[in-house]
Amino acid sequence: MTPARPAPDFTALLSDRARRMTASAIREILKITQQPDVISFAGGLPAPELFPVEAVKLATDAVLTRYGPAALQYSTTEGHPPLREWIGAKARIPAANVQIMTGSQQALDLLGKVLISEGDTVLVEAPTYLGALQSFQPYGPRYVELPTDDGGIDVDALEELLKTTSAKLLYAVPNFQNPTGRTLNAERRRRLVELTGHHGVLVIEDDPYGQLRFTGEAAPSLYELGLEYAGDVNANHVIYCSSFSKTLVPGLRDAWVQAAAPIVSKLVQAKQGADLHTPTLNQMIVTELLEDVLPRQIETVKKAYGERAALMLGHIRQQFPGGVEYTTPEGGMFLWVTLPEGIDSTRMLERALSRNVAYVPGSPFFALGGGENTMRLSYSSATPEQIERGVAALGETIRGALD
Amino acid sequence: MTPARPAPDFTALLSDRARRMTASAIREILKITQQPDVISFAGGLPAPELFPVEAVKLATDAVLTRYGPAALQYSTTEGHPPLREWIGAKARIPAANVQIMTGSQQALDLLGKVLISEGDTVLVEAPTYLGALQSFQPYGPRYVELPTDDGGIDVDALEELLKTTSAKLLYAVPNFQNPTGRTLNAERRRRLVELTGHHGVLVIEDDPYGQLRFTGEAAPSLYELGLEYAGDVNANHVIYCSSFSKTLVPGLRDAWVQAAAPIVSKLVQAKQGADLHTPTLNQMIVTELLEDVLPRQIETVKKAYGERAALMLGHIRQQFPGGVEYTTPEGGMFLWVTLPEGIDSTRMLERALSRNVAYVPGSPFFALGGGENTMRLSYSSATPEQIERGVAALGETIRGALD
Repeated sequence: MTPARPAPDFTALLSDRARRMTASAIREILKITQQPDVISFAGGLPAPELFPVEAVKLATDAVLTRYGPAALQYSTTEGHPPLREWIGAKARIPAANVQIMTGSQQALDLLGKVLISEGDTVLVEAPTYLGALQSFQPYGPRYVELPTDDGGIDVDALEELLKTTSAKLLYAVPNFQNPTGRTLNAERRRRLVELTGHHGVLVIEDDPYGQLRFTGEAAPSLYELGLEYAGDVNANHVIYCSSFSKTLVPGLRDAWVQAAAPIVSKLVQAKQGADLHTPTLNQMIVTELLEDVLPRQIETVKKAYGERAALMLGHIRQQFPGGVEYTTPEGGMFLWVTLPEGIDSTRMLERALSRNVAYVPGSPFFALGGGENTMRLSYSSATPEQIERGVAALGETIRGALD
Repeated sequence: MTPARPAPDFTALLSDRARRMTASAIREILKITQQPDVISFAGGLPAPELFPVEAVKLATDAVLTRYGPAALQYSTTEGHPPLREWIGAKARIPAANVQIMTGSQQALDLLGKVLISEGDTVLVEAPTYLGALQSFQPYGPRYVELPTDDGGIDVDALEELLKTTSAKLLYAVPNFQNPTGRTLNAERRRRLVELTGHHGVLVIEDDPYGQLRFTGEAAPSLYELGLEYAGDVNANHVIYCSSFSKTLVPGLRDAWVQAAAPIVSKLVQAKQGADLHTPTLNQMIVTELLEDVLPRQIETVKKAYGERAALMLGHIRQQFPGGVEYTTPEGGMFLWVTLPEGIDSTRMLERALSRNVAYVPGSPFFALGGGENTMRLSYSSATPEQIERGVAALGETIRGALD
């Protein structure tokens, strides 16, 4: 075919919103790091060798036998009733306050859609989960960053910011945060919930990793504290998102939101327009795995990630030069490294790749920029041997950059 | 728990966008019509008794055995490569111009997201697919309606409207339209593509039913004509959406978009923020069914729907009073009834339900209102006996309303 006519000016035909969207910086980096021979701490993939493949096979067979065509038919936007019941029972809330989502990413997208008007102020951790920024971005938020330390969000700073900004929404990952691996401590959780409640600011608690604690003691979720604060499930200003992606498998795309009825009913409308419903079969498969497979799987994953984290931390202690700081996660998949000021982790990546090791530079995780001397390391899908060799190579790279 | 504090004013905290969203009128009607004993022509469900349940079971087993954990891991936003290859080959375009979607509804949502800025003019058929209005609505379009008749969109009227409105986008369902069952004729297709191309207006061709033609001859798709007009896949101003929901099963939520590269690359960014990717396992299952099961399934479904449509039309001819008009679909799942002026199908629904028959009033399918004397009937999932009794009851209801 030869071009008969000049192409339309597609760029001019895009929405203003589309112009705000950009390709994920991480996604581009991941492409580079996927070279063979490269030990990658860059990805954030759950360990595939732990996936319960046989159990999924049996579960699929069972639900197709039990439900027949209904497992393949359209279903309700709210989600498969037994799955919502189970989640509600665990959280001690009615199933009506549970909305099933096609992965946590959809939860973030639809929450952004129904909550963020152009120019609304959204408080985010510095650094924060990049995927949330990507979901919210098309809706035109104005970000204000919350300073963080090893105990999570600095709640004194939050108190000041709540007085001076007219924030509508606070987004946080309180457990083993992506990207830092840090956890918001129990005392700060209470204050965060009280402060936001007092100022009428909604909180989105994103908790994909909470079940994967391999050391230390769990603090109550912001959602539970919000429930206590409000005294009623439909007055809770905290909205909770979680997922089966990190505990079971990600490829089925099954996640959920717990929220007050007025939020859930808007999410239902938004989801009708977004994908009608989460795949029926997938919800039934997950439901089939809840009682036996899920708890076993959580134990398996926790144990493996705990060992991998300990191993990586041990090698870091031995191999990284002085002046490099790093977090000590109590769960989840990530740890966070802060290099001495002046080292740019984005520029250093090329040298790391030449030593066959990869990481994600930290800068893209800051809503307002900065963090050039930081990096995220994932230990979730690396072998002991990869961890040893990779950390050694990274240590050499950092020492080289320091010279 | 007793309420400790007054609930936040959730409504005040919603986005402007969320205020524009409403519950689907049809969804609310469907709840009423799902009473036992009611013969419902209201739903738009594919016939579940035709679903290839055993084939899905075997396909799932096969892909889990072949791909192992990779079938349950995160995967690329663009979609499963073999699935994109197959779709591209069928359409004689590169796989790079194919984007997999979590159901056609997501295709419409993301196309709205990347194309419609607040206040942009979107041309839609009168009546049009309600689900598209629901997807586009949050993005703030201004609708202009295109008059239609039994040959589809009135292209003379389109020509005039293109001169007087500064439309950006035209949305159409050219084959066996939902809700009317009408098909845009071949001559009008050519003119539509030329007129929109000439005026720099993008076209979204929504084609979930195209494969389900049970009589008459297929016309080329707008997408094919756009390709001819532009002479290059990346200069085509027509964007094509289709789905495996009506040909295979809807519960897996697998659909796709064919478009020029600049549109696809924006859709990829939008989809990253919307759900990361369509479930991996589901895409692999569909791919497994493409060669053998899908063609057989299309034949089975076409035959069944053709018989059901003919049966419904036969009974309508006998049972409906004079002055009632109806379409004669050549494929798909729906037909459209126009009652004599003055009969309000929404008000008549209660009387129909008292005779144990249900339909969807036509009014919600008009972007700008009107069509109070119209209704949509679906024959896809009704038995011969239900069709006979239901049409008779509906005839009585209409005669009652005429008195």
